[in-house]
Amino acid sequence: MPARRRLIVVGGVAAGMSAASRARRMDPSLEILVFERTGFVSYGSCGLPYYLAGLVGRSEDLVVYSPAFFKERRDIDVFVGHEVTALDPSSRRVQVRGLADGEVREVAYDVLVLATGASAVRPPVPGVGRPGVFVLRTLEDGIAMRRHVDVLTGPDRTDGGRPRAVLVGAGPIGLEVAEALTARGLSVSLVEMAGQVLPGYHPDLAAHVEAELRRHGVDVHVNEALAAVEGAGDGGAATAVRTASGRTLPADLVLLATGIRPNVELARQAGLRLGSTGAVAVDHRLLTSDPHIYAAGDGVETWHRVLRRPAWIPLGTTSNKMGRIAGENAAGGDATFRGVVGTAALRIFDVEVGRTGLTEAEAAAEGWEPVTAYVRHGSRAHYYPGPGPVHLWLVGDRRSGRLLGAQAVGPAGAVAKRVDVLAVAVTAGMDVDEVAELDLSYAPPLAPVWDPILMAARAWGKAAGREQEPGSARAAGETARGA
Amino acid sequence: MPARRRLIVVGGVAAGMSAASRARRMDPSLEILVFERTGFVSYGSCGLPYYLAGLVGRSEDLVVYSPAFFKERRDIDVFVGHEVTALDPSSRRVQVRGLADGEVREVAYDVLVLATGASAVRPPVPGVGRPGVFVLRTLEDGIAMRRHVDVLTGPDRTDGGRPRAVLVGAGPIGLEVAEALTARGLSVSLVEMAGQVLPGYHPDLAAHVEAELRRHGVDVHVNEALAAVEGAGDGGAATAVRTASGRTLPADLVLLATGIRPNVELARQAGLRLGSTGAVAVDHRLLTSDPHIYAAGDGVETWHRVLRRPAWIPLGTTSNKMGRIAGENAAGGDATFRGVVGTAALRIFDVEVGRTGLTEAEAAAEGWEPVTAYVRHGSRAHYYPGPGPVHLWLVGDRRSGRLLGAQAVGPAGAVAKRVDVLAVAVTAGMDVDEVAELDLSYAPPLAPVWDPILMAARAWGKAAGREQEPGSARAAGETARGA
Repeated sequence: MPARRRLIVVGGVAAGMSAASRARRMDPSLEILVFERTGFVSYGSCGLPYYLAGLVGRSEDLVVYSPAFFKERRDIDVFVGHEVTALDPSSRRVQVRGLADGEVREVAYDVLVLATGASAVRPPVPGVGRPGVFVLRTLEDGIAMRRHVDVLTGPDRTDGGRPRAVLVGAGPIGLEVAEALTARGLSVSLVEMAGQVLPGYHPDLAAHVEAELRRHGVDVHVNEALAAVEGAGDGGAATAVRTASGRTLPADLVLLATGIRPNVELARQAGLRLGSTGAVAVDHRLLTSDPHIYAAGDGVETWHRVLRRPAWIPLGTTSNKMGRIAGENAAGGDATFRGVVGTAALRIFDVEVGRTGLTEAEAAAEGWEPVTAYVRHGSRAHYYPGPGPVHLWLVGDRRSGRLLGAQAVGPAGAVAKRVDVLAVAVTAGMDVDEVAELDLSYAPPLAPVWDPILMAARAWGKAAGREQEPGSARAAGETARGA
Repeated sequence: MPARRRLIVVGGVAAGMSAASRARRMDPSLEILVFERTGFVSYGSCGLPYYLAGLVGRSEDLVVYSPAFFKERRDIDVFVGHEVTALDPSSRRVQVRGLADGEVREVAYDVLVLATGASAVRPPVPGVGRPGVFVLRTLEDGIAMRRHVDVLTGPDRTDGGRPRAVLVGAGPIGLEVAEALTARGLSVSLVEMAGQVLPGYHPDLAAHVEAELRRHGVDVHVNEALAAVEGAGDGGAATAVRTASGRTLPADLVLLATGIRPNVELARQAGLRLGSTGAVAVDHRLLTSDPHIYAAGDGVETWHRVLRRPAWIPLGTTSNKMGRIAGENAAGGDATFRGVVGTAALRIFDVEVGRTGLTEAEAAAEGWEPVTAYVRHGSRAHYYPGPGPVHLWLVGDRRSGRLLGAQAVGPAGAVAKRVDVLAVAVTAGMDVDEVAELDLSYAPPLAPVWDPILMAARAWGKAAGREQEPGSARAAGETARGA
């Protein structure tokens, strides 16, 4: 009997477990081993803020399937607490260290999927290693941070005042945690180095989000860099955050949410090609520069369908898609990943935010001639009671008329799927004037007769000077009609 | 000084007023006259159920702009209570009758927009003319019906019991009114001739809606035709509805919501070409068979982008779009209407329903080889608290792989804009396997990591037998990799 072909998957969160599962479905005979450094696999890390908030009761609720499930139901051997410390493509072997016993062993593979993900960046300032300072990336991070919040808000706390959290970084994670900790009763300060929350989004959009944060009592500081985390003594627990401008913000808890970087040590050491973004480079089949190693997830570049080149946009939904493709191909399939268009969304308190495609700055940097149109328009019929308006920014190319991107902010429920509508239009390469005539659903409780999307596309036609001028139109019409 | 060119618009609701307004914007010098048979122009007739419900307080709230506004701000002369009784294309004159004084006059035009809309059909059975029997089409219809509901639910009613409404027809209007009158405290029965509510939608989708209606106490009778409206004496008020199967349903109010038909009398009498659907035929510029008459709105055919031929799909949002195009062209412009893809949506109680593109039956009738996939999938991350799942049906062509249509039902807020996402995909002519990889927004409170749309597209690949077979995929992959 010939030996079974062996697939090794390095990393067992979104991309890794998607790859393993898909490979199993493609090839029942494959031997599949997954090595995961942390103690958990197959969990929704995007749910960590909601676990902190208490909206998700137990950390297990974030886990989709357990290692036992993978073993019993999918014949996949999952090794948690096992770190792959070396990867040798020439001999097709990995070196694995069991974190519990320190034991190191070598394991051979026929094909490998690298899904090592990304890690939170800790700013290089004094005090970031103090107790009470957290990052939020793994399930362990979440469990540790929630335990700390539980203590701060529990009956045993010694300080009678309201516990204080300082969150460094006002990107999606910082904002979602701001909501979560506010819900837990903490007094929350946000510190952001850029001039606005949600850097990368339109400043006016960010202003709406900042107003919503303040409305819920979050203390927002923009243009403020982290200088140090102060504490009691050398290694004592964090008690305050000091900013570069000299401000001191008392803190019973500090979150560092200043970004992530791809985990590429293993790839680099193995001689795999990295892209210009710093993440692992892959082709459309998600094959790395080694013919037996696929890669997927937050540590890997993805194809940007508008930029038409690789980009590094780590997101859970993309990791799942990539993992599926990598697993299919690792099992002998021939799937290609079409890529992304830069869609993202989040909800902060009662406000929803989303984007797709390029921002005006991104478009300009690519040599387009971007024009942005802005509209503020109800998300329901004018007479139908409901929440406030949707604010929508459309970016299109003046020369070609093509839709390049969109951003939106508005009431919960009214934004993300509208952004998705535009994501499909961007994907299809539609012109803005085609967007203006899309046959979108209408009913008074669901949308106004002219959806904000249609209004924005019409406004763009005017902003870009592409709408027929009354005078010239008349002349053209007269000629066409022969009148 | 040369005489001003004169545009006459016949009908002043959605299409008519859009046409007049757009024409004014295109050509400040045009003389614009609008004749409207009823007493109101520029109102949202789709809002009538919400006016009945009391959610919209006053009938004026449904009106976007008054005749005085049009006169003062847009220099458009609106004549309400004026019926155009004849149209003579050869002399370019209309005959108009003032309903208040009965006076008839002739008015010449240079160009005309026909926006005569559609009328409610009253089934030809005894008793449909009795007091207490309503249709719901015009603002006057809504005012009369609400007045009746106010009396039935007011302090002066003589009968101590709960007032009873029987609604004939379980299409969108019948269902929206069922919700409205339930909210007003009436006991509501629905009578539908077809075997399900929402005829034309997937039967399983209809079953969800029917369950929602029953959950809110609505008494639903399908496979029941209206036989007569009974009442006290010959012309007395309605007291009951009798069905073809012999059932008698007591009624203090009867609504006939059995459909509408296009108002084409004027067009027919003027010799304009009607389409095979019975509605007015137009070209892509919305020009009728007469070179000086455009047409728009519920009385007119629209181009169906999937069927690639004219269809009659009267909807408010389409009427507005068509009106704008007709007005632009009537003023000398050269705009074309790209058409529709059959998108529609409604919300009934806590359930949202939508469709786009073709149903399986429609696709089969066109010679496609339709395959339908069904999924039931959460609208948020699995761990995020929220309402029930979205049910989604995707129709695609087995041979080409092209997405042809979709239908969905699910919790309020989770359906209509997902249908719109698919409407754009249908419009763009996407294949289902391209839909399966769309870069849609993801955040735990907004969508699961695999949106129901992506799940449905994947399920379709399996249902249509287009997904790579595990065995063959492996073989193909081995060859491609040279292993």
